[in-house]
Amino acid sequence: MSEETRGDNETSDQAPVSSSLNRRQFLAGGASLLAVSASAALSGVQAEERSEAIDPMHVPGALPRPYGERSPFEKQTRLAAGTSSTTPLQDLQGIITPSALHFERHHNGVPAIDPTRHRLLIHGLVDRPMIFTLEELLRFPSASRIAFIECSGNSRDGWGETHDSTVQALHGLTSTSEWTGVNLTTLLGTAHMQPEATWLLAEGNDAAALARSVPLTDEVLNEAMVCYGQNGEALRPEQGYPLRLLLPGFEGNINVKWLRRLKLGSAPFMTRWETAKYTDLMPDGKAYQFSLVMDAKSVITRPSGQQQLLPDFHEIQGLAWSGRGRITAVEVSVDAGRTWQTARLQEPVLPKCHTRFRLPWKWDGQETIIQSRCTDVTGYQQPTRESLIKIRGTQSSYHYNGIQSWKIERNGLVKNVYV
Amino acid sequence: MSEETRGDNETSDQAPVSSSLNRRQFLAGGASLLAVSASAALSGVQAEERSEAIDPMHVPGALPRPYGERSPFEKQTRLAAGTSSTTPLQDLQGIITPSALHFERHHNGVPAIDPTRHRLLIHGLVDRPMIFTLEELLRFPSASRIAFIECSGNSRDGWGETHDSTVQALHGLTSTSEWTGVNLTTLLGTAHMQPEATWLLAEGNDAAALARSVPLTDEVLNEAMVCYGQNGEALRPEQGYPLRLLLPGFEGNINVKWLRRLKLGSAPFMTRWETAKYTDLMPDGKAYQFSLVMDAKSVITRPSGQQQLLPDFHEIQGLAWSGRGRITAVEVSVDAGRTWQTARLQEPVLPKCHTRFRLPWKWDGQETIIQSRCTDVTGYQQPTRESLIKIRGTQSSYHYNGIQSWKIERNGLVKNVYV
Repeated sequence: MSEETRGDNETSDQAPVSSSLNRRQFLAGGASLLAVSASAALSGVQAEERSEAIDPMHVPGALPRPYGERSPFEKQTRLAAGTSSTTPLQDLQGIITPSALHFERHHNGVPAIDPTRHRLLIHGLVDRPMIFTLEELLRFPSASRIAFIECSGNSRDGWGETHDSTVQALHGLTSTSEWTGVNLTTLLGTAHMQPEATWLLAEGNDAAALARSVPLTDEVLNEAMVCYGQNGEALRPEQGYPLRLLLPGFEGNINVKWLRRLKLGSAPFMTRWETAKYTDLMPDGKAYQFSLVMDAKSVITRPSGQQQLLPDFHEIQGLAWSGRGRITAVEVSVDAGRTWQTARLQEPVLPKCHTRFRLPWKWDGQETIIQSRCTDVTGYQQPTRESLIKIRGTQSSYHYNGIQSWKIERNGLVKNVYV
Repeated sequence: MSEETRGDNETSDQAPVSSSLNRRQFLAGGASLLAVSASAALSGVQAEERSEAIDPMHVPGALPRPYGERSPFEKQTRLAAGTSSTTPLQDLQGIITPSALHFERHHNGVPAIDPTRHRLLIHGLVDRPMIFTLEELLRFPSASRIAFIECSGNSRDGWGETHDSTVQALHGLTSTSEWTGVNLTTLLGTAHMQPEATWLLAEGNDAAALARSVPLTDEVLNEAMVCYGQNGEALRPEQGYPLRLLLPGFEGNINVKWLRRLKLGSAPFMTRWETAKYTDLMPDGKAYQFSLVMDAKSVITRPSGQQQLLPDFHEIQGLAWSGRGRITAVEVSVDAGRTWQTARLQEPVLPKCHTRFRLPWKWDGQETIIQSRCTDVTGYQQPTRESLIKIRGTQSSYHYNGIQSWKIERNGLVKNVYV
């Protein structure tokens, strides 16, 4: 039988009506029994559509656009707090963060840079100081990598008293992009770095002139990139347009944005960004400097703080990441940590990259606490808040990676709690 | 020595001057000798910046934005031609296509759909016809996958006479996104698909009511998804907001956008989109129907048509993809096909996904022709235009995947040619 769609006398307008299925069990991916909540009966839906809205099938649609935009019905936004803004983790799909929703952190605003005027200087302990235009950098051998960047101050509220909040406000200073640029070693080779060079000063072209000292470890030499691309196009202004440093796994601020200068030296440069800021105060009053790597962390993004649940089937979802490499496992507890189940990880699982985990779950309407904990390729397991505080105290501002606990109240409200 | 950046008496403003390095050879990634062209002398650059523009370090930057935009200096756009628009492949980085630059193809415009009113009907050979709201679909177990979609008419100019054009105009109807949604089998299981069901009609909610018949092969049942997410956020309107079918590896149009209806049947539905359109006319006058898989193709995107080269070092870059699985190799010829070199593939190499390849190259200023050819996991190698035409003739409109040849003229202009 042929079916000419518009002429079909059996289109959905006349289709045999179903439906209204309450909590019917179905097999999801061969893994778990889930249910779907009731659908409106067909006739009701159709009546509603006909009476109240223009049927998009009855009017020609929009013509092609040179540069697309999201649907006006979509409202997710970053949430600004002073000089930063957070990614709406509760709304994200997959592992790529839309560039428009990548978190921001700047110390004197986002500079407006003309790329034709921008230059990168490489000097210090090099035989041949160099200045590069962006056009020149674009002609070097290139590389791309999907990696997270996380502000070292992400999740910092964890050091203090618990308070009702969203996953975006608590943990939204982390995002993942596909970054493209030139391997740092290519540029250092071009400038003929001297053997004594063991540290690198990276300076931004913003009004804060943010500058950080980068130790030239094997890891840095193997992985660091000077990037001009993000998710297929040029870096966004908030992420360093037209040039940034990428140090996969290292705290966000050292991935210096609006990069203008790399100076080779034989010791850390002790900028105020690594003395007055971005150090970790320990219980004995001493402070760690250059604790650069972001340790493994995970967080359940759905359901999460201030969301409202119905007793029903839910897919628990979240993100896990580690500055030390690949995530090897994420476990989820739905009973306040008494038992743990292994979550499914979205492939490909990439090193130093957000990894989405998923676990089907039926909430029975009873009060409970849900948590996630991840393990990375080094065997390191994300600590409880208690064990983290035991070592680090509560005077730190940075590098909080304790397990996040969400309490589901009997009324379905999800709350940030400590256990 | 400490370096307080703004107070440092050795910032770049006073840095020991380099420079002006002409074609210095350097080691790129341990692989190839490349050179970088001359940089302006430092003093000149600085003078220029001071006299003609506001130094972004001297004015506070912009505050956080709820939803970011690209820099006003960036101008890459899709190129519209009637009811389609092409991705600027020559400008892309990495493998992710920015959603705003994902190619478009629609048959009566892009519909404006209110997601709260949108419904998906599943009916036909099912025990339980179902209607889903978007909210309900969002609560199903989800999956994400990075995959290309290519219009079957991409590269169609290859069937005709050669003409001067860009890679965007010739091959830009292909893009890659991270797609998120529900596995098709999950929904078919919910509707209790009957054993006799072997085909699926998928219909869009656009004014063309585009509808295609999908064979329910193992591959389709294993891989098809009903998607609501693209690159971390909701689908863009041009890509099917709020819901589309994803059939990784299949020609674009059958990945039905604005998806409103799935009807199970026991034979193809023979819509006009698979009878009057989207068939492949062979030399003997017969036409193939349902040639759905996009065979392996590659194209060099830089340097490419209408670009202008200088005799210098260049990184040849391009994209390769196959609807049958992973790309296993891309070879590049810089001598009109006499010899071939293996290009480097950007990791991760994902099945049915754009794969970026890169090969360093020094153009000596002589006229030549550059080409790429790829091999996929099945062992299939991209054919020459000659061998493709020999079998398919020149009456087809779709599924052209012959090797693209770019001629570099002595003046450096890059032209589309047949060899």
